[in-house]
Amino acid sequence: MDRLAVVGAGTIGGLAAGHLSRVADVVVIVRRQSQADALNAHGLRISGKSEFTAEVTATTDPGQADGCELVILATKATQLDAAMRSFGGLLSNAVFMTMQNGIGAEEVVQSHGTWLIVSAVTFMSGTRHADDHVEYELDTATWMGPFRGTETDLETAGAIGELFQSSGLKAEVLPDLRPAQWSKLVFNSAVNGVAALTDLGHVELFARRERSGDLGFLVADLMDEGKAVAKAVGVDLFEDPWEMNTEAVSHGQTDSEEYAHVPSMLADVRAGQRTEVDFILGALVREADRVGVDVPLTRALYRLVKARDRSYDD
Amino acid sequence: MDRLAVVGAGTIGGLAAGHLSRVADVVVIVRRQSQADALNAHGLRISGKSEFTAEVTATTDPGQADGCELVILATKATQLDAAMRSFGGLLSNAVFMTMQNGIGAEEVVQSHGTWLIVSAVTFMSGTRHADDHVEYELDTATWMGPFRGTETDLETAGAIGELFQSSGLKAEVLPDLRPAQWSKLVFNSAVNGVAALTDLGHVELFARRERSGDLGFLVADLMDEGKAVAKAVGVDLFEDPWEMNTEAVSHGQTDSEEYAHVPSMLADVRAGQRTEVDFILGALVREADRVGVDVPLTRALYRLVKARDRSYDD
Repeated sequence: MDRLAVVGAGTIGGLAAGHLSRVADVVVIVRRQSQADALNAHGLRISGKSEFTAEVTATTDPGQADGCELVILATKATQLDAAMRSFGGLLSNAVFMTMQNGIGAEEVVQSHGTWLIVSAVTFMSGTRHADDHVEYELDTATWMGPFRGTETDLETAGAIGELFQSSGLKAEVLPDLRPAQWSKLVFNSAVNGVAALTDLGHVELFARRERSGDLGFLVADLMDEGKAVAKAVGVDLFEDPWEMNTEAVSHGQTDSEEYAHVPSMLADVRAGQRTEVDFILGALVREADRVGVDVPLTRALYRLVKARDRSYDD
Repeated sequence: MDRLAVVGAGTIGGLAAGHLSRVADVVVIVRRQSQADALNAHGLRISGKSEFTAEVTATTDPGQADGCELVILATKATQLDAAMRSFGGLLSNAVFMTMQNGIGAEEVVQSHGTWLIVSAVTFMSGTRHADDHVEYELDTATWMGPFRGTETDLETAGAIGELFQSSGLKAEVLPDLRPAQWSKLVFNSAVNGVAALTDLGHVELFARRERSGDLGFLVADLMDEGKAVAKAVGVDLFEDPWEMNTEAVSHGQTDSEEYAHVPSMLADVRAGQRTEVDFILGALVREADRVGVDVPLTRALYRLVKARDRSYDD
């Protein structure tokens, strides 16, 4: 895999493109010509856990990805469908890897072509300071595996994992990614949903269960609903979401510089842009309905965040 | 009732003090000396549905309320206890009237003295433009009645109602105010709670029930929980909260100038100040626990708004 494309150069796309450019030719495909110009003129600066400036080729034209063996999809879940539309008929031999939050990204890719698909869930995080500068904060792993039900094999995912590792990113390859995707889905539905509504970053209050009005009770109840859905779907969660919650907030307390407190849906709310609610809370509600599990609190949060998204229309 | 005091000169206190000054001597008791100075220097301007400037005596010292036969309490529910502390031992023959949102204000008054108490629920609304200027927007009635379980009689409430009417305010006197208080409590728990979390004013979306993600389903479910609590408490609601909701938002559509879209808890959130959540959602949850009714959605909203209140501490 000497030549690959990264679609989207937000935080995750930037971190992936920057690191991978050290071991492969990287074409970065973005929506705005101004971002492409900035990246071509100055390179892509990575600061924080890694410090370097990467040379990348940036473009708004997917036709420039010619010859790429791998396409890493790092757009927001909400923008994936629009991004995939421009890939129709291109790169039929390439592997496409989804890195979106929530679930359902692979199906969006499948609706546009018959590529091999690798699923990924990433736990790394950072802050996008400019079109050509991303700070690498949490250098945790990206998990990847062949997308269930396709012909993609474990070796393909393994090759991408090795590429990540050789570039300085952490990666873990799993035969079935669903337990990890679902752990993150259940975690994110509760934590992102609560954060988006309360304007609170992911702080200790999310795990507090002392007085009956405490937020931790709600977060735990939400996670119990999500766990019941996972069980009914037949997924054995990789990690317990409540433990992820308590670990993350205690990490935040002891090392607040390092831990990225602002869940992505809250970042979207603060930026006045639509959240990925339909891929996170909405996806969990749809799965719950499909398997017949009652999720009244998750559904309430879904409706509230959907409504909050509408507030930008005012 | 030739001489009365109004405690608190926000929107409701200002509208009451301004109008009542046309038929009685009014002492306005406020927290900030700067507001007292502004009111004493310029009078209290009322615009909108009424247009005049009222002469009032403003002070930060409850001792100046000497000789008042009526004390109208128009502070935020969150500030009532602090305001009552300074009335200890004063005006033992006066009637105190509570106008706070939610329930529980009368008990706060009782904890500070043995005055006669009249309960009130107001539906008038307006906008506070300055320390000495309030715009009168919705000129709907204030409902009042003797506080249940005290020696206050209907005639006392009736005399206050007549005073309101002679001053140009609308009033309705009821032997038992609880059906009205509870209608407003159930309505406000849902509408104020959802507004505070979504940053949406009380708009048509609150009544929309077309697609399963629509907010109206949540508002209706919240109101059903509240109605179940009222029933278990033994209160026969004066108005159906869902009808209050649909009427209010359709009023908003046809006459958006007139309808005050911003529920008070959302106004508090936007101003970065603590909401009355403990007197509205919190009171409903406590009553539910007392009578053994399950209110999972109301409790979820209570925890979310409590957490949102904490976000100001950051």
